[in-house]
Amino acid sequence: MIHQVLIVGGTHGNELTGIYMVRKFQECPDLIKRTSFAARSLMGNPRAVSQVTRYLDKDLNRCFDHQAWSASASIYEEARAKNLLKQYGPKGETPTDFVIDLHSTTSNAGLMLILDHLDPFTLGLAAYLQAKTPAVKLYSSTGSGRENDSMRTLGKYRLGIEVGPLAHATLNADLFQKTEALIHHALDYADQHNCQYASPQRSPTQSPTQRPTQSGEPTPLTVYQYIGAIDYPKNNNAEMIAMTHPQRQFQDYEVVNLGDPMFLTFEGETISYEGKTPVYPIFINEAAYYEKGVAMSFTEKKKLVT
Amino acid sequence: MIHQVLIVGGTHGNELTGIYMVRKFQECPDLIKRTSFAARSLMGNPRAVSQVTRYLDKDLNRCFDHQAWSASASIYEEARAKNLLKQYGPKGETPTDFVIDLHSTTSNAGLMLILDHLDPFTLGLAAYLQAKTPAVKLYSSTGSGRENDSMRTLGKYRLGIEVGPLAHATLNADLFQKTEALIHHALDYADQHNCQYASPQRSPTQSPTQRPTQSGEPTPLTVYQYIGAIDYPKNNNAEMIAMTHPQRQFQDYEVVNLGDPMFLTFEGETISYEGKTPVYPIFINEAAYYEKGVAMSFTEKKKLVT
Repeated sequence: MIHQVLIVGGTHGNELTGIYMVRKFQECPDLIKRTSFAARSLMGNPRAVSQVTRYLDKDLNRCFDHQAWSASASIYEEARAKNLLKQYGPKGETPTDFVIDLHSTTSNAGLMLILDHLDPFTLGLAAYLQAKTPAVKLYSSTGSGRENDSMRTLGKYRLGIEVGPLAHATLNADLFQKTEALIHHALDYADQHNCQYASPQRSPTQSPTQRPTQSGEPTPLTVYQYIGAIDYPKNNNAEMIAMTHPQRQFQDYEVVNLGDPMFLTFEGETISYEGKTPVYPIFINEAAYYEKGVAMSFTEKKKLVT
Repeated sequence: MIHQVLIVGGTHGNELTGIYMVRKFQECPDLIKRTSFAARSLMGNPRAVSQVTRYLDKDLNRCFDHQAWSASASIYEEARAKNLLKQYGPKGETPTDFVIDLHSTTSNAGLMLILDHLDPFTLGLAAYLQAKTPAVKLYSSTGSGRENDSMRTLGKYRLGIEVGPLAHATLNADLFQKTEALIHHALDYADQHNCQYASPQRSPTQSPTQRPTQSGEPTPLTVYQYIGAIDYPKNNNAEMIAMTHPQRQFQDYEVVNLGDPMFLTFEGETISYEGKTPVYPIFINEAAYYEKGVAMSFTEKKKLVT
């Protein structure tokens, strides 16, 4: 049963979609009310929000793994993560059963659902949202580290909503409304999940993810599974020598084969993909990842029959 | 005669196009060499560049009007502007005849030339660049304030190159190459201008802007003339209540008539244009202008016969 739902915006203080969404929900909490659970909304990093910056000392979305905490207590985001864990975390005062964390990216993510675990609840949620909004893409973040250190670790079940392309520190009305619709569908799904649990007709082996189709066979889900990340080409002084290639820009989820263009040097020379295995890059040219040494993430495209 | 040319990038520390352009020119100064003048390149706000932020204390591109300087000497960008004026300004050690300042914007500027003064040299430059690159748009900034307080005031003749849409803190290879091509054309124009001046055949009344066409008549230039700026709709607490309308997003340079949609509230209600005079908005949804209370600038579309 889902008892406590938490909707988070402003985990990054310059991603305005989630920030204004949380402000809206905090002004009208009835909007996220459902019969079978309590839903709260939270501004993830209020100090970063007030400065319209991603973070002050350390990316808050990398601060929830206690093993990585610094000895010093002076890092604002680590202190914030500790407080949030104490209140909303798995061992907190009001543990969160289902967390929805709202993000945006300068890459052409479209409407991306970030899935940390491919458990039946989460796969059912993904299938439900894709049925409601066929444009959504499913990203399995297992192996990226985010399943252990992100804001989403507050929840037993987790959904990241990543929309783009959107310049940080801006709003896009279309992406705002699409994000809002996804949140409402996700809340409806959790509500239906609770109803199925509460219903005596429901067989314990029947997961809400099992969706009979017209043919009787479940539809496979296409999932982009994280493999790794690659950096921009750099010189010996660790300075970037190339940009995202024009043929790669905004081509998230599109296959890259051996020899395909990846980067363009400032002198105009193309650098190509040298891997033998085809990959499906995402987070291509995300602003916040320059400092992290990430030009894009590679994924593998998989079909999952749920 | 143009003796000293100055190419500036990084006036805003998160606009990477100009920053990497200046780095390129500083590594290979020969790239901007021409026979008839000296060309230098300058990183406008190096501290902001190192922090990948627009500015530290105050927008440097509003700091060049000495009448607006604060009494305090602790504002980094005002001190920086004073130093730059002392070296490169009209009364400086090596006064700048022609300045090219490189910018990018999250709005759909395309390839915008910012013109502070519509003198013959500048109009000839605009016509030359438009002949080489028909996609360029001409923006006359007179009345916006930038003609008095921006980095461009270092130069007697001035060109701002504003490219978009581009998320701040990112590079776009296509826009990088187009910016570079415009710089080279502008340098060529200045070089040709000097040659015409030096040539004894040239009549003193014949401006390099006078371009005979096939019909013998000069082609009129389309110029977007600054009228004013409007803010986002706000409540009594000065909080935004609406976003750029989807039908206005990325529609820079497109006419807006009475009743056309302008904003969309967070509740989904459209706010329309109530002016009786048609306007041509630019800088629609520029990230850095949220804090300045500017949702977009209004311009008037004019034809100029040079």
